[in-house]
Amino acid sequence: MTDPRQPVSREPQQERSRLTRERLLRSTIDALAHDGWSAATVAAVAMRAGVSRGAAQHHFPTREALITAVLEQVFDDMTSTASTTLAALPDDETERVAAAVDRAVAIYTGPQFKAALQVWAAAASDPALRELILPMEDKFARAAHQMTVAALDPDGRYPDSRRIAQVTLDLARGLGLADTLSDDSKRRAQVVATWTAMVSAVLVPPPGSQSLPPGP
Amino acid sequence: MTDPRQPVSREPQQERSRLTRERLLRSTIDALAHDGWSAATVAAVAMRAGVSRGAAQHHFPTREALITAVLEQVFDDMTSTASTTLAALPDDETERVAAAVDRAVAIYTGPQFKAALQVWAAAASDPALRELILPMEDKFARAAHQMTVAALDPDGRYPDSRRIAQVTLDLARGLGLADTLSDDSKRRAQVVATWTAMVSAVLVPPPGSQSLPPGP
Repeated sequence: MTDPRQPVSREPQQERSRLTRERLLRSTIDALAHDGWSAATVAAVAMRAGVSRGAAQHHFPTREALITAVLEQVFDDMTSTASTTLAALPDDETERVAAAVDRAVAIYTGPQFKAALQVWAAAASDPALRELILPMEDKFARAAHQMTVAALDPDGRYPDSRRIAQVTLDLARGLGLADTLSDDSKRRAQVVATWTAMVSAVLVPPPGSQSLPPGP
Repeated sequence: MTDPRQPVSREPQQERSRLTRERLLRSTIDALAHDGWSAATVAAVAMRAGVSRGAAQHHFPTREALITAVLEQVFDDMTSTASTTLAALPDDETERVAAAVDRAVAIYTGPQFKAALQVWAAAASDPALRELILPMEDKFARAAHQMTVAALDPDGRYPDSRRIAQVTLDLARGLGLADTLSDDSKRRAQVVATWTAMVSAVLVPPPGSQSLPPGP
């Protein structure tokens, strides 16, 4: 119980406001990933989150404000999942390369990517939205690249690691897109194994061999 | 002038009908690529193509019929452009690998891919549309894979060529997606060069070397 003689704290209200904002953002990601762009309006998302329209508009006065905040959240989610795993990378070089590639692919195969894809598709025909998201996209791409380079080549020993990280992320994006309409995990595992072997051949030079693992 | 004694030919009318259908399909691809999914209705596309709504509905009674026909056209365009170039591949192995990779990437960086992307994004939240396009998508993926394998390894000498073709196409899809919001051609050229060098190291074994070309 709060002592009535203490000054009234603003904390609980601020905390409630923070939680409401978070709930609205989670509902928007869910709406985008499952029901597409048209489901991600402030009014529809408020209803989905069980928040009054007024409260939702207090946090996000416009759809633009909502989408901007959602992309920030999505990109944060995508990079923070990756960085948590990358902090505990195996010491063995081959295992580390495999873990780094797996992480890059995981960035693009979750609901966050599916949500971002809806925003990209909408932005392709909306110049104002495009201008809004391009700088965020650019910042995210740099962070993802930096993390992938650090994972593939933590000691900066391989000059090719920067370019290989770039290919890894483009491949991961393509695999993410292939996973949006049906579960592509089985085929993807084989593509990832092939790529991991090719990366290892460059970043973990074995004694005179560069063969790929046996096929299925 | 037609001889009035000749039986009236159905040819010109059939030809006009074929041209109208083609014009509607081209307008739909254009609408999807530039104005997104919501612009690709039978009525809106009829207006865009300068075709009466009745004539458009004669060819495409429903939006589903229109979208199915458009995806067939898009996938045909994407594979036929590739197969034309692949028919004239250079003899030199390194040049051939580079041309095969360029072709795969070109499949995913034209307006056809941008149009298909809008349909994919819409299908992510529309199970009926998804069921409609998954078999077509599957057929297209097989054709693209077969062509890329044939280009990378025309004599079937390398057991890894099937899996490398798969990675090539996933990478190409990721590069296509990166190109939808802004011109990514400069960065893409570097990613393609890195990947081409890695493929050549496996499919065109050089005398004891597997280094990548110098960086920028």
